[in-house]
Amino acid sequence: MNDLSAPPAHEALKPAATAWFAALRDRICAAFEDIEDAGGADPGRFVRTAWERPEGGGGVMSVMRGQVFEKVGVNISVVQGHFSADFARQMHGAGENAAFWAAGISLVAHMRSPKVPAVHMNTRMIVTTKGWFGGGGDLTPLQPGTAEAGEDAAFFHAAYKAACDRHGADYYEKFKKWCDEYFYLPHRKEPRGAGGIFYDYLDSGDAGADFAFTRDVGEAFLAAYPQIVRRRMGESFTPEEREAQLVRRGRYVEFNLLYDRGTMFGLKTGGNTEAILMSMPPEVKWP
Amino acid sequence: MNDLSAPPAHEALKPAATAWFAALRDRICAAFEDIEDAGGADPGRFVRTAWERPEGGGGVMSVMRGQVFEKVGVNISVVQGHFSADFARQMHGAGENAAFWAAGISLVAHMRSPKVPAVHMNTRMIVTTKGWFGGGGDLTPLQPGTAEAGEDAAFFHAAYKAACDRHGADYYEKFKKWCDEYFYLPHRKEPRGAGGIFYDYLDSGDAGADFAFTRDVGEAFLAAYPQIVRRRMGESFTPEEREAQLVRRGRYVEFNLLYDRGTMFGLKTGGNTEAILMSMPPEVKWP
Repeated sequence: MNDLSAPPAHEALKPAATAWFAALRDRICAAFEDIEDAGGADPGRFVRTAWERPEGGGGVMSVMRGQVFEKVGVNISVVQGHFSADFARQMHGAGENAAFWAAGISLVAHMRSPKVPAVHMNTRMIVTTKGWFGGGGDLTPLQPGTAEAGEDAAFFHAAYKAACDRHGADYYEKFKKWCDEYFYLPHRKEPRGAGGIFYDYLDSGDAGADFAFTRDVGEAFLAAYPQIVRRRMGESFTPEEREAQLVRRGRYVEFNLLYDRGTMFGLKTGGNTEAILMSMPPEVKWP
Repeated sequence: MNDLSAPPAHEALKPAATAWFAALRDRICAAFEDIEDAGGADPGRFVRTAWERPEGGGGVMSVMRGQVFEKVGVNISVVQGHFSADFARQMHGAGENAAFWAAGISLVAHMRSPKVPAVHMNTRMIVTTKGWFGGGGDLTPLQPGTAEAGEDAAFFHAAYKAACDRHGADYYEKFKKWCDEYFYLPHRKEPRGAGGIFYDYLDSGDAGADFAFTRDVGEAFLAAYPQIVRRRMGESFTPEEREAQLVRRGRYVEFNLLYDRGTMFGLKTGGNTEAILMSMPPEVKWP
């Protein structure tokens, strides 16, 4: 790893990482469509739309507007090019050479029922003159403070903790804290949700191990979130609870547009606006 | 004006500016309540809430949730203190001495009917080691591209042009262009609305004249916008038109949280969150 003339080991992982993100997308979409089938009449189905990036690469948006999933977007992308001069200075390993390659998956689900938490997950591999993995997942209960929200959060955290513990003794504590710090709204003095894990610039020196961890993070999401949805989707709710859900969704919008690095970076550097803003909730109130 | 040891002439205008912003607020609120009275049963009324800023000063939010005005907020504030070191460097006249005083009025109205344009207006006086006025107003049709939207915009622009023309031959052209450039969403490649005027750092050397211009900008708003509302409020609309209005409102949110300097500055420097986010539309969709 100290031979500066050698490309990062991540170079060799590009095909496998690309394939993994697409396969995870397929499995998640299938699991979510199964939930729709269990949710009653007129189940939703994902609609896929491919997009290309003028400088190189592109992605596929998969969006489902269903009965249980009010709106869920799953994006995968493989992009390459050169960071703008300003951005290159801020990016790991791009100070001297602004070329980059990035592949990843990102998902945001907003649910019809206020009893079912919203969720976000994202994992990615980025290659500049260095290479690293990043990602995570976090849960947003729409009825924070309730016993159910606490149970769901505990279950979600346990799944990520198990994945973390298989790869690094300090991973869970470190990545949970990072998540809590990242998904915080200073102007509201509120966390965005119930947390989860968040990691970035993960380059342990063993790219294969870091990729295995990233795969386990994806598996943890797939194992945990659909179970939470199935547990809560049948619970009844009142119009007042729905209204409170729409108001709480405003916090999600505020976070994504005011603070989220990915959203702001994407929008301000000519990313695919539709794909980036797929994360916006379908209906929101600021009463 | 070249005697650097003298305080800016704006110093003497502080009481008059403070009183003017409050009086304009009173007149606008009265005009809007009159419209509510003309809008049918159960007319809305403004509710006032005062807030204080720990470092000094404060403001009053006036909010009405009515039948014609779905949500309108009119804030006045008089605040003083010291800019943070980072911010002082960016602010006119605050490089050496971070003390500032600022008073102003800001207003955002979101209307129930998609036939009635939304509106924003703001005027302010700021005093550091320098003093200046800023502000403007802009109209956001929710059915852009229609003949009605064009008529409303022309009427609104004409009112501001008349105010500008009384004070500076180049004011209208300059401030209209500034508005068009400022209220633009690069990620959508769209203007936020139909424009109006925007000016900042106005210090012509005659503070009294600049204050008179700022008053005329307020008068232009008061003369023009209530007329537009009255002209459109009785027009019928379809559920599809209402839906399209809610989607278009998303652009307003995107602009305010991603690009608006006032919103971001306020939220990131401990301003009054409720007062700042009063500008958010009451209901929004990103379908």
